[in-house]
Amino acid sequence: MKRFKMRSVRRVVNIAVILALFFVFTRPALAQDGEPVVSAVDTVWVLFAAFLVFFMQAGFGFLEAGFVRSKNVVNIMAENLMDTTMTTVGFIIAGFGLMFGTGNAFFGTEWFFLNGMPDIYPGLTIPTLAFFFFQFAFCAAASTIASGLMAERTDFKADLAYSFIVGLIIYPVFGHWVWGGGWLAELGYLDFAGSSVVHLVGAYVGLAGTIVLGKRKDKKFGHTIRGHNISLAALGTFILWLGWFGFNPGSQLAADPMPISLIVVTTDFAATTGAISAMFLAYLHTRKWDVSMAFNGALGGLVAITAPTAFVTPQAALVIGLIAGVISYYGVDLMEKLKIDDPVGAFPVHGLNGMFGVLAVGIWGVDGLGLLHGGGFTQLGIQAVGLLACTAWTLPLSFLMFYGIRAVMGLRVSADVEEAGIDLAYHGIGSYPEFIGDSKSFATPVFLSEPIPGSTD
Amino acid sequence: MKRFKMRSVRRVVNIAVILALFFVFTRPALAQDGEPVVSAVDTVWVLFAAFLVFFMQAGFGFLEAGFVRSKNVVNIMAENLMDTTMTTVGFIIAGFGLMFGTGNAFFGTEWFFLNGMPDIYPGLTIPTLAFFFFQFAFCAAASTIASGLMAERTDFKADLAYSFIVGLIIYPVFGHWVWGGGWLAELGYLDFAGSSVVHLVGAYVGLAGTIVLGKRKDKKFGHTIRGHNISLAALGTFILWLGWFGFNPGSQLAADPMPISLIVVTTDFAATTGAISAMFLAYLHTRKWDVSMAFNGALGGLVAITAPTAFVTPQAALVIGLIAGVISYYGVDLMEKLKIDDPVGAFPVHGLNGMFGVLAVGIWGVDGLGLLHGGGFTQLGIQAVGLLACTAWTLPLSFLMFYGIRAVMGLRVSADVEEAGIDLAYHGIGSYPEFIGDSKSFATPVFLSEPIPGSTD
Amino acid sequence: MKRFKMRSVRRVVNIAVILALFFVFTRPALAQDGEPVVSAVDTVWVLFAAFLVFFMQAGFGFLEAGFVRSKNVVNIMAENLMDTTMTTVGFIIAGFGLMFGTGNAFFGTEWFFLNGMPDIYPGLTIPTLAFFFFQFAFCAAASTIASGLMAERTDFKADLAYSFIVGLIIYPVFGHWVWGGGWLAELGYLDFAGSSVVHLVGAYVGLAGTIVLGKRKDKKFGHTIRGHNISLAALGTFILWLGWFGFNPGSQLAADPMPISLIVVTTDFAATTGAISAMFLAYLHTRKWDVSMAFNGALGGLVAITAPTAFVTPQAALVIGLIAGVISYYGVDLMEKLKIDDPVGAFPVHGLNGMFGVLAVGIWGVDGLGLLHGGGFTQLGIQAVGLLACTAWTLPLSFLMFYGIRAVMGLRVSADVEEAGIDLAYHGIGSYPEFIGDSKSFATPVFLSEPIPGSTD
Repeated sequence: MKRFKMRSVRRVVNIAVILALFFVFTRPALAQDGEPVVSAVDTVWVLFAAFLVFFMQAGFGFLEAGFVRSKNVVNIMAENLMDTTMTTVGFIIAGFGLMFGTGNAFFGTEWFFLNGMPDIYPGLTIPTLAFFFFQFAFCAAASTIASGLMAERTDFKADLAYSFIVGLIIYPVFGHWVWGGGWLAELGYLDFAGSSVVHLVGAYVGLAGTIVLGKRKDKKFGHTIRGHNISLAALGTFILWLGWFGFNPGSQLAADPMPISLIVVTTDFAATTGAISAMFLAYLHTRKWDVSMAFNGALGGLVAITAPTAFVTPQAALVIGLIAGVISYYGVDLMEKLKIDDPVGAFPVHGLNGMFGVLAVGIWGVDGLGLLHGGGFTQLGIQAVGLLACTAWTLPLSFLMFYGIRAVMGLRVSADVEEAGIDLAYHGIGSYPEFIGDSKSFATPVFLSEPIPGSTD
Repeated sequence: MKRFKMRSVRRVVNIAVILALFFVFTRPALAQDGEPVVSAVDTVWVLFAAFLVFFMQAGFGFLEAGFVRSKNVVNIMAENLMDTTMTTVGFIIAGFGLMFGTGNAFFGTEWFFLNGMPDIYPGLTIPTLAFFFFQFAFCAAASTIASGLMAERTDFKADLAYSFIVGLIIYPVFGHWVWGGGWLAELGYLDFAGSSVVHLVGAYVGLAGTIVLGKRKDKKFGHTIRGHNISLAALGTFILWLGWFGFNPGSQLAADPMPISLIVVTTDFAATTGAISAMFLAYLHTRKWDVSMAFNGALGGLVAITAPTAFVTPQAALVIGLIAGVISYYGVDLMEKLKIDDPVGAFPVHGLNGMFGVLAVGIWGVDGLGLLHGGGFTQLGIQAVGLLACTAWTLPLSFLMFYGIRAVMGLRVSADVEEAGIDLAYHGIGSYPEFIGDSKSFATPVFLSEPIPGSTD
Repeated sequence: MKRFKMRSVRRVVNIAVILALFFVFTRPALAQDGEPVVSAVDTVWVLFAAFLVFFMQAGFGFLEAGFVRSKNVVNIMAENLMDTTMTTVGFIIAGFGLMFGTGNAFFGTEWFFLNGMPDIYPGLTIPTLAFFFFQFAFCAAASTIASGLMAERTDFKADLAYSFIVGLIIYPVFGHWVWGGGWLAELGYLDFAGSSVVHLVGAYVGLAGTIVLGKRKDKKFGHTIRGHNISLAALGTFILWLGWFGFNPGSQLAADPMPISLIVVTTDFAATTGAISAMFLAYLHTRKWDVSMAFNGALGGLVAITAPTAFVTPQAALVIGLIAGVISYYGVDLMEKLKIDDPVGAFPVHGLNGMFGVLAVGIWGVDGLGLLHGGGFTQLGIQAVGLLACTAWTLPLSFLMFYGIRAVMGLRVSADVEEAGIDLAYHGIGSYPEFIGDSKSFATPVFLSEPIPGSTD
């Protein structure tokens, strides 16, 4: 049977890259071509993608709830729900304007309180309100990532406060540099769907938070405190994986068939090999198939593919995922060695793999973009500059914020509350009131029988 | 950088209102314009929205399951699954025809058993079967809402019977008045996505049910019996919030970019401020961050915005949500004072906020619709008439139905079954057979340590 | 009020059947018409459908997790996650090429490692990568179905191995016969969305697996070992029902309004009556409303409607679902009598109802297709040939595979591990480490108080 001209996946990728670059660089210009036009199918695509991204709040919530002890589950669910709402308020007041409003190379200066927005987002074919909703869902993800690193000891009021500030200023300003026409965009920095803008920013906020907080009282480095419910963590992982099918292809901001199909496949492939490499590594080291490593491996793959998702081949995505799983695995070890308490393994997943994802654009990007495709070190260098910029903006500001919160309202619960659990003290209820209620079971953490491999403790 | 003509969100809302009013009033006329045309993108939008609304059944199920005691969880899950199926049967036999078939001002008189339906729904651009499926999912929601008010003591057979009757006649007749070209539609009554048609109707059915049933044996007014699993309730809340992104913008029944984007944003905003106001109120009164109040505040905001979602600005949606959270909070108190046992807080969420949502159209509706936008009291009066009509139709008929069911087959489980739990007696299994099994733990409810604020008990 | 020409649902179905047949038989021809064209709305539809199908992995996971004992929950979740990844690898290497590449009547011979694929899938209007992703999600479902039949005693490594082989060769070859232009397609065999291709294949793999494994040590035929968590099983059921709204109408592979609307309705109707008939049968036999039967009845209805979903009327779908529920119910009984240990009831749901669904095309197919619509026994005979072919290919090969795995790496965990639970021995963690930990509770299964009706034991 004769088929029409065969073309390789490579060619699909080329088209996707051209479209994506076109999208990144010509967005403002397009709006001057004439009357802006709105597209029904583009709007449907972006809105459904946004719904999936919104649902990732539930995914983060259940992942974290599964990985903490039952005495802090109500608090984690409350944080994940309320983080979304506080971020929304911050993003309405100033975040969206700082990030996407016209301004200078560093921040936007219009659209505060949603005032003065055009009907159709300049250069796109979707209403500005659809664009706003998609971007708000991204912003909410960033602040929620931090709550994982700070789990089991953060004062609830402090959680509300930092979520608001992240949505108000920390997230949007770096976002403006990359996606709002700021100086990194001008430089040619590429982060398609937010390995740095969302994940690394969220991880840095959380890193500053956990350092300012200090470790959980009964955390012993080199030993994992078991999460209380693996089914909940699995639910969170599946919801997050699903949500990424909105996160990455939705970032095309239009229903362009070729790029969004490529993005879906690269996204899925990186998650797949991320889960495989992390789980097989766990088995090699401990002879146990540690399913929590499979979860974090898959999520690490997803974070890593987020920046390069539209710029690489499916085959490269398999490799990126494999490496991401390795990073997720040894990253846990690194955090233990650095004596940083990260209860759910969020920094290896979102921070280290966020960095790796940004660099992956400069390594595997096709069409002369990456090191392996004839691009030399140019793009890789630009990507490294972006990472430095992300670090320089987010980390000091986050430390400042948490020191400020600690001074003004307190950041950490009391030792008694931490031992008894935040749920009863702060929320007045336990997560499973009919099942466990005696404080003794709360006070004794369940450690994994074997120490974390490679741990010095 | 120069942008094309700036227009305000206000303008978007104007367009949306015009389109929505056009949609409401001209639907029958459109079909006479010539050959009806079907649209792929409109069908995709409505079907995906319908899937999200269908999934709300799971949301209601988990919210209720989390808020009841473990001895009644199997029963709640069985009710939520089977409610859907029984409603479907009733809606096929007569409900859809009564609601949307051509007839008189009070009910439709065709399309029973799905016979004689046109390929394309008159005045729309989607197949009648797609329209049917979307509307069935709404109908299922109404009957499921009632199960929350009647939880922990209703006979399972009675639950099947009332679900069937709600889908057969109670829901569709009021629906015909509002959405099927009936007398309220003629009068100009506006309920965009069903604050009254779905939520208030469901809440009234449940209110009649809980009054006819009487309170749970071990309920003490002024004291909350704790739900058994906060994670399940959180899951339900997140699924419902997600589902509302089908519920409200799907009700546009076409993928019109401007209105659906506005609807998504107003829906999300009302949920956001609803959660905030309910949770901060709880904190002010009890110094506890009661997450179940955050859940019910968000859901109250969603119910309240359902009627006006297409007619108000995003800023107004923030205000509507804030008030809805207050209603959700004090509504619980009101139910206790009225000595009406509402185990999951469904009446404040769906009933009181359903009423508020209907009135909100007459207050915040733009373009001369609402009191605050130059509309005087005209629309507000029409909305009040609609509320009276909803009450006059639904409440007496529901009482009649439940008295009838009680006479014919019994409505309430025996005292022994209620104490031991419905799960073992009616379903033959417990929800967590390996965890709890002794009847003693079932018989002792876990009360919240503090009484409900403002309670007289 | 006059409406335009009324047409019956029958007419919609006719159009759907014509389109579907057109789709099945003319796909290769279309590609020769000229330049292939890609459609945004078709791509959006297929991708979103694929996301829902992907999420079915979570649905299978929670259904199985809820139906097993708590000592094996981590293992089940790990299997469901890793099955997806192993199948992906197999499907990339050879599965997709064997199934859809051009070749002979028995298997395709191109596109291995995704090499040489055209941009746009021949005869369709969607990118090949979108088509690949949709088909991969189907393949993952097939291998996951098997894990239910083999639950609570299969070695985890063996699970990884068979998942890989299913995705590499077992699933794709039969798939080529039906959907890849192979000999069954030439013969006129119709399986619209995979009652046989996905469900029966998966069930046969699992059947061979459970027979080679033997029963669980403490299984007594005629007595059900209770699942540990009904809420999880309910979650799984709801997610699967939702996922089927991607599975069936997505298989149209284009957003054709009439057929996809019909498919959505027939899918939902069969699930509805499946749940009803299975649950009422349970009540008739035991006077208990067994909610697990409602779950399996709904799923049986969904499996049965999968093959004929585009070829039958909504009314016929109600009948097909009713019968499917009966099959799900008595099928459990049959497995007990045959002394085949099927911990989650997967064979009645996916195997027996998969067979029934294939035959249903030959019975209720409209437009001269089925026995009841003037088609005589022609199509029914072709469908029977397809069932025989599926059996002849899948079952012996699966036995061969499992004997091979048993010889090479072992298939079953040790008796000690089985008694203590696979979670601690293989994964190093328990599912709920704070709740249960003593091995005594693990060793004592909770049997349903009453024997399975009709059981001989």
